[in-house]
Amino acid sequence: MKRQRLMRVIENMGEMGLKQLVVSDPSSIFYLTGINIAPGERLYALLIKADGGATLYNNRLFPLEEQDGLTIVYHSDGEDAITPLADSVSEGALGVDKTWAAKFLLDLTGRRTGLRAVLGSRAVDEARRLKDAEEVALMRAASRVNDAAMADAIGLLGENISERKMASVVGELHVKHGADTAVPQLVCYGVGCSEPHHDSGPATLKEGDSVILDIFAPVKHYWCDMTRTVFYKSASDEQKKVYETVKAANLAGIKAVRPGVPLREIDRAARKIIEDAGYGRYFTHRLGHGIGLDLHEPPDCSLSSDAVAEPGMCFSIEPGVYLPGKWGVRVEDLVVVTGDGVEVLNAYPKEFRIVTPK
Amino acid sequence: MKRQRLMRVIENMGEMGLKQLVVSDPSSIFYLTGINIAPGERLYALLIKADGGATLYNNRLFPLEEQDGLTIVYHSDGEDAITPLADSVSEGALGVDKTWAAKFLLDLTGRRTGLRAVLGSRAVDEARRLKDAEEVALMRAASRVNDAAMADAIGLLGENISERKMASVVGELHVKHGADTAVPQLVCYGVGCSEPHHDSGPATLKEGDSVILDIFAPVKHYWCDMTRTVFYKSASDEQKKVYETVKAANLAGIKAVRPGVPLREIDRAARKIIEDAGYGRYFTHRLGHGIGLDLHEPPDCSLSSDAVAEPGMCFSIEPGVYLPGKWGVRVEDLVVVTGDGVEVLNAYPKEFRIVTPK
Repeated sequence: MKRQRLMRVIENMGEMGLKQLVVSDPSSIFYLTGINIAPGERLYALLIKADGGATLYNNRLFPLEEQDGLTIVYHSDGEDAITPLADSVSEGALGVDKTWAAKFLLDLTGRRTGLRAVLGSRAVDEARRLKDAEEVALMRAASRVNDAAMADAIGLLGENISERKMASVVGELHVKHGADTAVPQLVCYGVGCSEPHHDSGPATLKEGDSVILDIFAPVKHYWCDMTRTVFYKSASDEQKKVYETVKAANLAGIKAVRPGVPLREIDRAARKIIEDAGYGRYFTHRLGHGIGLDLHEPPDCSLSSDAVAEPGMCFSIEPGVYLPGKWGVRVEDLVVVTGDGVEVLNAYPKEFRIVTPK
Repeated sequence: MKRQRLMRVIENMGEMGLKQLVVSDPSSIFYLTGINIAPGERLYALLIKADGGATLYNNRLFPLEEQDGLTIVYHSDGEDAITPLADSVSEGALGVDKTWAAKFLLDLTGRRTGLRAVLGSRAVDEARRLKDAEEVALMRAASRVNDAAMADAIGLLGENISERKMASVVGELHVKHGADTAVPQLVCYGVGCSEPHHDSGPATLKEGDSVILDIFAPVKHYWCDMTRTVFYKSASDEQKKVYETVKAANLAGIKAVRPGVPLREIDRAARKIIEDAGYGRYFTHRLGHGIGLDLHEPPDCSLSSDAVAEPGMCFSIEPGVYLPGKWGVRVEDLVVVTGDGVEVLNAYPKEFRIVTPK
């Protein structure tokens, strides 16, 4: 058990009036125990009690070494996995993770009449969202990998490499530079760039296309995430203007980051640049998302966020403009809030750029 | 809307006494609507009423074309997404999907006092687990892709390709042969084969290693999944004996499949072969899992399954023997229950084989 992190979670539980909490998110369990399991549809849950007790309910398929301060209760496929958990919780409020599957939650609450499930993720989320020094170092190292993969990927742009192929190649570049695994990437050419969540397909490059490379990978479990937009062979005046607007929004967002600033004001600072340039209605998503052991995690950096920047928070600053049926631009960096300002985790340049293969 | 499938779900709801059901699994929503969205942490839910009404709650990030018989209610990031859903459900029992995230479920039930959430996935699962002719044809086509990828992958085995590299290359082979996307594969060499859920790592091949290639991909949304075990350069007598035992168990399982047979008896038929050979304690998982729009879906083919084979059911038959700290063997095929027996979906040979690179 990572004792210090567990204690922070229990402190948060106390503030929420929770004496017991079920943590089911594998990333959160890793954060607290160092144990890394992908349980699929099987029960995998860490029950934390206010007195410091921690019990992991785990399938026998994933055998674990013993560790101090953690009890492990195994079940096999086909066994009733919930009973031991139901027997261990007390009457009253039980905090549960926000992503816990209804099949476990309803099964558990259906067996214990005095039990009342409430959302308890905040106890873990508020610990996880303040990265400690060890975690910030890991986030930095992950973004180094992403810088290297981006440089390689941009060097490979050409008419012979489809969106889908590039999405797969970037995953391999990540692994080559030290990532834990290759994950499919978000690569868009031309009209594909007009959709923020475009599925990379068979499209190939033609002159005048915008190219969005939104690339991300876990490195020693911590995620990097960066987006660069370049243009292929040529760019129109409007493309250059939109690019400079989005880049200015990215810089304005970064400049707004310091301890004490509400995250919604960071979104506002970036969004204003795009609105003032007349493209506000084409910036259709939040400015950014928290990142760490998950690619997307709290805090949210949006107009509706109620989070306030604190040292150790990591999140993305990723304004974009998406012109329906035409093209789009996004520029994304990761930041960490420092004691008196901000550190940008990735370093790959973001100057306006036209790429022409040799 | 896929009207016929919706009607089957509503019929199942009737048998369960449900007048309303929230379907949140993106695969189930695709099954019923043809709409394919990966919503991440955002609300994405299809509310089905017994009168045939269907409403999709969807984030504005994923714009959709209109379709007959489906109402679409959009929300934006940061908006309160649950209110419109809470306003549309009635008092009394509300069926919910087994994987629906607690954050939505508890938010919804917390707003409506007369609402009682119950597990309702069965209404959709029991429709989905009986593949119609169109789906069986898609499952067959997907397994053709897997046969081709397996042949290529086995041809590439050699000392220059690590587990992790092979896991990535097989994903690309899938795409080359027609898969929707490249997903990381389960590739094990030598001692890695002794863990059923081994993470592919930097290990490379050495003489005498068992090689498990457990490969899978979605093709037009329907999954294939096959495992072959071969040996590198040489195999011991025990390796050959265990291989033949596992293959015989696979064949016994397949032979047991026909309409009316409980799936637990299929597991038993295969398991008995391994137990009789003295390796029962090393076969540590269920015989198989249902498959279709998800890689793992109902029905479960295990000793504790209460499902009975019916025409249209698709599942895996994948006995294995895992010798801790040494090596392991698994042989997996997909089957579909036919009107009077069984069809095996994949065709790649499973004879005992020693691979020696040219």
